[in-house]
Amino acid sequence: MLLSGGLDSTTTLAVAKSEGFELFALSFDYGQRHKIELELARRNADRFGAKKHLVMNFNLGDIGGSALTDVKKSVEAWKRESAEAKTTAAKKESIPVTYVPARNTIFLSFALAWAETLGAGDIFIGANAVDYSGYPDCRPEYIKAFEDMANLATKASVEGNLKFEICAPLINLTKAEIIKKGTELGVDYSLTWSCYDPVLEQSEYRPCGKCDSCMFRAKGFHEAGINDPLIIKADC
Amino acid sequence: MLLSGGLDSTTTLAVAKSEGFELFALSFDYGQRHKIELELARRNADRFGAKKHLVMNFNLGDIGGSALTDVKKSVEAWKRESAEAKTTAAKKESIPVTYVPARNTIFLSFALAWAETLGAGDIFIGANAVDYSGYPDCRPEYIKAFEDMANLATKASVEGNLKFEICAPLINLTKAEIIKKGTELGVDYSLTWSCYDPVLEQSEYRPCGKCDSCMFRAKGFHEAGINDPLIIKADC
Repeated sequence: MLLSGGLDSTTTLAVAKSEGFELFALSFDYGQRHKIELELARRNADRFGAKKHLVMNFNLGDIGGSALTDVKKSVEAWKRESAEAKTTAAKKESIPVTYVPARNTIFLSFALAWAETLGAGDIFIGANAVDYSGYPDCRPEYIKAFEDMANLATKASVEGNLKFEICAPLINLTKAEIIKKGTELGVDYSLTWSCYDPVLEQSEYRPCGKCDSCMFRAKGFHEAGINDPLIIKADC
Repeated sequence: MLLSGGLDSTTTLAVAKSEGFELFALSFDYGQRHKIELELARRNADRFGAKKHLVMNFNLGDIGGSALTDVKKSVEAWKRESAEAKTTAAKKESIPVTYVPARNTIFLSFALAWAETLGAGDIFIGANAVDYSGYPDCRPEYIKAFEDMANLATKASVEGNLKFEICAPLINLTKAEIIKKGTELGVDYSLTWSCYDPVLEQSEYRPCGKCDSCMFRAKGFHEAGINDPLIIKADC
């Protein structure tokens, strides 16, 4: 399963655990500006008894095209430049500048490779298409197309009998429903990170409170009627 | 375009060039035992005037499942162990141990990310389904499924108007036809590498002459009635 250390993927970890799966967690050090999430991924993998936690390293900053992997420019500067480049009509519907080109496709491809090696058919991802940023690679039709491709791609599925399923148990839930479900299943949300643009203050990172991801998180906790332990802890 | 430094991808480079495309070449340092191919990829990218040659780094050896990324064990040892583990019936049709789990899916995913960033719709790959090792991710049905997925995966295809096409101009050619075509288009096959299991002799690498990839190459040159300049040069 893909584990970013964020709210959705950690909840997905808890869901897979509750369904009795043996857990193999895969994270990526891909040049993201919010690298802090990796430490939380490690702690959650431990906490839910993952058999292994593998971190793949590569730098999507070499490819570019995203505020999230551009360490030279702030997310705000990306937003400004992006808005200036667009007409009013296009602005309205735009996928945010934090979109990373083909990120879930890259992540799921590595997950597919590892799953084949392990002989595991079930690949979990915390994709969500309700309270989300509109990333195309979080939608059910994308997940289905990846699954169809995966079953044509590997030795295990073509020569063997392994059938891959891309499991996205949160895909149709609201953020509030996700938080409620995770809370029932024992997720400690103080150990999850959502902010794309963390602020370093007195040797501690705190969420910016302004990026899309912070907004969806705040909305979710508010609607769930639960306090966000991370926000409280970070005095934000 | 994906450029490995092998015979097929270098021919594909020449085909794309002859069709008037502006070339952006993508290679991978993924922990392969035949890393020598990367230097040849660089030289061919230069030779055909690629605008940029990008090499992504990650280690598929961490994922395992292939003789090609297992530096601790020889390809021959993999073959032996694999054969011992199989029944006679399964042996006959087996995809070779040099198969790397989900390799083309991983490679094409990075190509998709870069293509989106560049605003390029045409992604070239040297996949071939005639004289090949039976890798599932070289077949037309796989290529089509990846293309369908790609067009649901990205901001550029969903919000913009970019239509991705996975171009595999060699997919239905024999190795001999590929070599003839490449020769017409100016490929210097002494600058291409096929062997999966190079032998280091007197500070020079030479092809093993025994792996699947060496066999297909030899058969191709033989059927094309052309001498392999690499084999001659390497005195093999």
